Amino acid sequence: MRSLTETIVAPATPTGISAIAIVRMSGQNAIEIANACFSKSLTKADGYTLHYGQVKDGETIIDDVMLSVFRAPHSYTGENSIEISSHGSPYIVSRILQTLIKYGARIAEPGEFTLRAFLNKKLDLAQAEAVADMIHSQSEAGLQMAIRQMRGGFSQDISQLRQELIDFAALIELENDFGEEDVEFADRSGLRKLVNELLSRIEQLRSSFVAGNVFKNGINTVIAGKPNAGKSTLLNALIKEERAIVSDIEGTTRDTIEEVLIINGIQFRLIDTAGLRHSADTIEQIGVDRTKASMAKADLLIYLYDAALMTPDDLQQAISELPQTRYRLVVANKADLTSGSIEHISISAKSGNIDSLISELERIAAQFEFGDQTIVNNVRHAEALEKSANALNDVLNGLDSGITSDLVALDIRQALYYLGLISGEVTNEDLLDSIFTRFCIGK
Amino acid sequence: MRSLTETIVAPATPTGISAIAIVRMSGQNAIEIANACFSKSLTKADGYTLHYGQVKDGETIIDDVMLSVFRAPHSYTGENSIEISSHGSPYIVSRILQTLIKYGARIAEPGEFTLRAFLNKKLDLAQAEAVADMIHSQSEAGLQMAIRQMRGGFSQDISQLRQELIDFAALIELENDFGEEDVEFADRSGLRKLVNELLSRIEQLRSSFVAGNVFKNGINTVIAGKPNAGKSTLLNALIKEERAIVSDIEGTTRDTIEEVLIINGIQFRLIDTAGLRHSADTIEQIGVDRTKASMAKADLLIYLYDAALMTPDDLQQAISELPQTRYRLVVANKADLTSGSIEHISISAKSGNIDSLISELERIAAQFEFGDQTIVNNVRHAEALEKSANALNDVLNGLDSGITSDLVALDIRQALYYLGLISGEVTNEDLLDSIFTRFCIGK
Repeated sequence: MRSLTETIVAPATPTGISAIAIVRMSGQNAIEIANACFSKSLTKADGYTLHYGQVKDGETIIDDVMLSVFRAPHSYTGENSIEISSHGSPYIVSRILQTLIKYGARIAEPGEFTLRAFLNKKLDLAQAEAVADMIHSQSEAGLQMAIRQMRGGFSQDISQLRQELIDFAALIELENDFGEEDVEFADRSGLRKLVNELLSRIEQLRSSFVAGNVFKNGINTVIAGKPNAGKSTLLNALIKEERAIVSDIEGTTRDTIEEVLIINGIQFRLIDTAGLRHSADTIEQIGVDRTKASMAKADLLIYLYDAALMTPDDLQQAISELPQTRYRLVVANKADLTSGSIEHISISAKSGNIDSLISELERIAAQFEFGDQTIVNNVRHAEALEKSANALNDVLNGLDSGITSDLVALDIRQALYYLGLISGEVTNEDLLDSIFTRFCIGK
Repeated sequence: MRSLTETIVAPATPTGISAIAIVRMSGQNAIEIANACFSKSLTKADGYTLHYGQVKDGETIIDDVMLSVFRAPHSYTGENSIEISSHGSPYIVSRILQTLIKYGARIAEPGEFTLRAFLNKKLDLAQAEAVADMIHSQSEAGLQMAIRQMRGGFSQDISQLRQELIDFAALIELENDFGEEDVEFADRSGLRKLVNELLSRIEQLRSSFVAGNVFKNGINTVIAGKPNAGKSTLLNALIKEERAIVSDIEGTTRDTIEEVLIINGIQFRLIDTAGLRHSADTIEQIGVDRTKASMAKADLLIYLYDAALMTPDDLQQAISELPQTRYRLVVANKADLTSGSIEHISISAKSGNIDSLISELERIAAQFEFGDQTIVNNVRHAEALEKSANALNDVLNGLDSGITSDLVALDIRQALYYLGLISGEVTNEDLLDSIFTRFCIGK
């Protein structure tokens, strides 16, 4: 476990020229360290106070800043904390960091502030994960789901179920203590009823995962098609700005380009790809390979073809070669340039006439509705729920086959373990590492 | 002039996923608007206070935030101001902005917060410009120069000179009021002495401009040479990281890449460029044209050649075609692969043996020394000083040729005007526009 006695520091805002940048510091010596390089005394500063002054490295002024003081336990981490709001210069930020490190802080690991908040019981594990989800939210649905999870809705749901199960486990383990004596403290039919309730609740949560994943990550949408089918033009028409370089030279789009289109609160992550053709150009060939990989991973594959150039046979052939995806739309482009029969969704990307495609996207978005129920949006949670359900099914099977109470207790413990992983009531260092290293630095 | 009665809002931190993002708002209704979409009442909040709560759009929670209240005149702009510190999600920032706009704020123009600080006399024009310089500072020399200017050193220097001249102007204009009568309130020899002092002070300031420009903007350094001379490898060796894509395929480097190398506090802005050759590839030809343009603008041109491949005649020819630049270094690369005679600085970029080049860069950096004197680092200031000097020379010539006092007064007013432009004692809307539109949004 990382040491909680050290004082950690990190930039909390993205690197770049801006009006303001923030450096945050947390740990038992945070206020003393800030005091050593600030123009005013902070030793008697109350928590939740703002101080205008200069950060100084010895006699050298680094910047005029606004400094916030937070005293344990009333801070994000639950520790003494400082936030320094400086001019938004990457150079100034690096000088402030250097100075705080010189006076005793060390650079924080990614997610270490939130890890400390968890270890200091300011939030549980599911709430900590919701913090990361909030930061990465890109749509109203994703944000509201993260806010609800951060407010503890999901954890409470799980904790309540878990507590009832703990009570049964305690009774059954009491039976084990009585050894040979044939006592039965735990009402078996009551246990069976609770386990069935739990299983149905878990099933409900697990089935929300598909929608949860769409709310959180959006619908991975790949626009594919032959060179010059108009993929970049379509992307531009969809996002209404010149993000992709549109060019008549074949093979212009060398990298996959990602943009987000939000329809009814659901985000479509649009990936424009290099044209599908064989290329002698090494760099371009890498692009083509990447396209194929993207297509295979897509939730929605939009196959675009040039209505004026593609014969029905060629089109049939091309479609037959597409990978299986959850949704697929075959779209005829340049439909205004041809009078031939049109069997698919028909658009003109160049003239911005893409209404029929938008309608299809709306139809897909409408399949996901965000009600009041708790939604699972996290692979880790979905897996823990599945393992917990397996253990609970073992409990039921054990009760049916009349196995001994110590074995039943073992299965219950197993289920409790997996449920506990979700909120962090049960934890281990590997789990914490895998969760918090996915955070950005400074959080 | 933009209206000061409106309440303005803008993101103050760069866009990106991060721990924290800040939205700032300023104007007479800033506290009321924040109050309308915050979970706690702010109407009685004192200035310099921090409040934890939720930003809400009606009943919809957008985020848990920390909100700072500043009351006029004790804020950056001198107006009522709010800073909202939210989770670092671009989506959340956009939602917060939308909500504040809905309740009556409008998006700020670039630099509008600092413009208001200027109009509310929180800082003068040279100080406002120093704020932008601080944010863009990339070296200790640049930062310290900006800090000194922000503390008002430069403005005070100019203001004092200007005040003495104003006193003389007043006396001379008094003479004009007396019309025909032959009175002389202003002591001509005293005026002559002051004007000479002013001219020598202005000359001193103007001569600091070359160093000031280097402190602020660094030394524009272009690495040029034929394809495969090892330019990208040299850039990597200089900055010790794999910023440029190094490849053996000719023409890999299509865009100019800029990195900053700081030697003795002076920044060398390194520009790696597409290889110098004729190309049939349209995109690459753009890169070659860009290289030529970069070379012509360089302060320092590093011409790199492959010691094993280039004949002395070819080299002579190549050097003769280079544009004139302030500094030029001709560097033989891959010197470890050849035993031929070496006339120039000799390195091996690939093996990281570039000490002889570093020594040359140190020699150039040493030419700029940062003393205690006021340094001009701003083209606008340099121009105003020059025009002011011209007007003062006209005053001297006028005194010599015995022109009438009203004409002398006119030249003095001219000099006063240009000096006043520096600190903003004299100003106009075009000038303010040209200064503040160069700021980033949110500042």
